[in-house]
Amino acid sequence: MIAQKYHELPVFEINEERERRVIYTDHLMLAIIDFADGPHTEPDPPHSHPHEQVTYIAEGEILFIMDGQQMHLCQGDVFSVPSGKPHSIQLLTPRARLVDCFTPIREDFIG
Amino acid sequence: MIAQKYHELPVFEINEERERRVIYTDHLMLAIIDFADGPHTEPDPPHSHPHEQVTYIAEGEILFIMDGQQMHLCQGDVFSVPSGKPHSIQLLTPRARLVDCFTPIREDFIG
Repeated sequence: MIAQKYHELPVFEINEERERRVIYTDHLMLAIIDFADGPHTEPDPPHSHPHEQVTYIAEGEILFIMDGQQMHLCQGDVFSVPSGKPHSIQLLTPRARLVDCFTPIREDFIG
Repeated sequence: MIAQKYHELPVFEINEERERRVIYTDHLMLAIIDFADGPHTEPDPPHSHPHEQVTYIAEGEILFIMDGQQMHLCQGDVFSVPSGKPHSIQLLTPRARLVDCFTPIREDFIG
């Protein structure tokens, strides 16, 4: 498969209202995360991982929280997360789509 | 800067009708590529790079060409490119936005 249509990507249901679809190479993973459980009154709990992360806001609006700062992000905006750094988001709209990229790949997202 | 608004990202003009905006960590780069020169009657020349690549189609429609195959991709669709593999795209709409992610980072996209 040289490419994949969104609707043909395998879907992992994170929970009833959050879905994840991934594509990856040896050291690079792209994860489309679709949220349908917003808006939220407070952020998700902070989390961290050894993987470096860059994210594109494809749909919706979020607050991105890291290092005691927060920023309101809309479609087209981006954020980056160094290895091991705690970070969190809060959904500001009913739905949102984040395009999260990671290196190395998130083995916990496969299989 | 913990995150960046699209309109505050530094813009690199690839040419008069193609713009690139990047954000990156140590080993991971996200490049927003905005095309305004479509549609095209034939593909861009194939190119390759040692960097692994995954791409999200954020806007518009393209043909993605690799390994003698082609696929029509729309918003939400994705493709991946292994290290060193020649690939090409052809714009099918007047405008398109690709979110290209690379590891390692594209030093040629910086400074």
